[in-house]
Amino acid sequence: MDEVDYVSGETRLFGIVGHPIEQVRSPEMITAELTRRGRNAILLPIDVLSDDFEACLAQLMRVRNLDGLVFTIPYKQAACRLASRLGEQALAVGAINALARDRDGGWIGEIFDGLGCVEAFRRAGQAFTDRRVMLIGAGGAGRAIAFAVASEKPKSLRIFDIDANRASGLAESIRAIHPEVDAHFGDPAVEGVDILMNASPVGMLNDPRMPIEVAKIPSDVVVFDAIVKPEQTRLLTLARESGCRTLFGRQMMHGQIGKVVDHFERHNGTESARPATAGA
Amino acid sequence: MDEVDYVSGETRLFGIVGHPIEQVRSPEMITAELTRRGRNAILLPIDVLSDDFEACLAQLMRVRNLDGLVFTIPYKQAACRLASRLGEQALAVGAINALARDRDGGWIGEIFDGLGCVEAFRRAGQAFTDRRVMLIGAGGAGRAIAFAVASEKPKSLRIFDIDANRASGLAESIRAIHPEVDAHFGDPAVEGVDILMNASPVGMLNDPRMPIEVAKIPSDVVVFDAIVKPEQTRLLTLARESGCRTLFGRQMMHGQIGKVVDHFERHNGTESARPATAGA
Repeated sequence: MDEVDYVSGETRLFGIVGHPIEQVRSPEMITAELTRRGRNAILLPIDVLSDDFEACLAQLMRVRNLDGLVFTIPYKQAACRLASRLGEQALAVGAINALARDRDGGWIGEIFDGLGCVEAFRRAGQAFTDRRVMLIGAGGAGRAIAFAVASEKPKSLRIFDIDANRASGLAESIRAIHPEVDAHFGDPAVEGVDILMNASPVGMLNDPRMPIEVAKIPSDVVVFDAIVKPEQTRLLTLARESGCRTLFGRQMMHGQIGKVVDHFERHNGTESARPATAGA
Repeated sequence: MDEVDYVSGETRLFGIVGHPIEQVRSPEMITAELTRRGRNAILLPIDVLSDDFEACLAQLMRVRNLDGLVFTIPYKQAACRLASRLGEQALAVGAINALARDRDGGWIGEIFDGLGCVEAFRRAGQAFTDRRVMLIGAGGAGRAIAFAVASEKPKSLRIFDIDANRASGLAESIRAIHPEVDAHFGDPAVEGVDILMNASPVGMLNDPRMPIEVAKIPSDVVVFDAIVKPEQTRLLTLARESGCRTLFGRQMMHGQIGKVVDHFERHNGTESARPATAGA
């Protein structure tokens, strides 16, 4: 093979920034969606250490053929400072996972994790309305999921984080925006829970731990794990063995891929390049 | 298509840095060679403005999954400062086009333009020995070509640049290393010339000019143009119409692709990952 056909001098660049980076799935999935829409573009993994984040990102954003960035652990909150304008979800959550170069020169941040998660449940025929939700993890992804789930009017939203203040602070923010939702801090539990969600990094890659220490999960609990690598975390294995319905991090990603690429295209000003789609 | 198979979280990054960038051919060609050798790697176009070069490159080199860079116009000389060690050709030329992350943490610079050009002529059955060479352009690529051609013992090497001092300085450097070669400054000419080489940017992209103002070229002159986009420059069109043998920038690139990737692998420490190749 003399030349490859998926990258050229005219390719527009996107990146996913995180540390570690090997476990991310956006390169395969978002590149596929960009390509499907007819763009000569690729989304790359970009592995940046925390100490380098600020200086490195400031310079990456000056690369002229870079049109957008996705952020993953541990940068979803720090990335807010890079945006010249934040979307509605990002303002509530205090984190972003997508940053688009605007055709006017600014950078527009928004978070789609929570919306993608709700979309994944919707596609699986599962509603949050009037159900009791246990959420583990109040970091970037956890906050996004909490706000999006709260919009769906669950009966209750119990939130745990190893940093208890972070979890109770999130519950308080939820109640401020959604006073009708019983959002509160609570230890991990499977009793009195309809939907169990892990949005903490516990169980990622070679981490053998579980975000909740139980031997069995009641079979009527729906269990979701935001982790994408491994796909089958120990939590989800236990859930399957317990007879529970399970949802995967990859489904949350699938639920948001289209929304993230819409965000890029809307601000890059490339929507009208797609004949099949109405221009913006 | 749900996922692409050519990029993932584990992909190692390489880049070609220049401005403009759309015309480069390294992304297709070097990515193909990296892939052929079994690496999960991709070489991207990176468009950086001159004012941003120093700060941007310092940060790009801190991206942990970036293993190497290629430099094109106008950065081949400035890029020397990024290297912690320079190869033999780079020391003579004062420019690099390849910078490899060393397994010990440093960055090793070398230039393969000239070696690739001589290799392209060798593959085409053309030798420089005892022939009269006219070289237009004494920038990064021109200097590299001049030193590599001088090693082949041409009868003479006449060098032109719009910056006359740059051209005569290059001729002087050549004579210092190769005193047996008649290297000198001279205006562009096709009479008394066996091989005409353009290494200036004149004729690149939409530039309609020619690096030499002649209506016809003697048919026994071999004409080479280092420009890769367009492939068929006006100079090469005239050469073909004049009945001359022509060589393209793409052939020079082909001549050096293997050498550039060897350089990356030798320093990245990935050679031994290839079962078919002896480890370094």
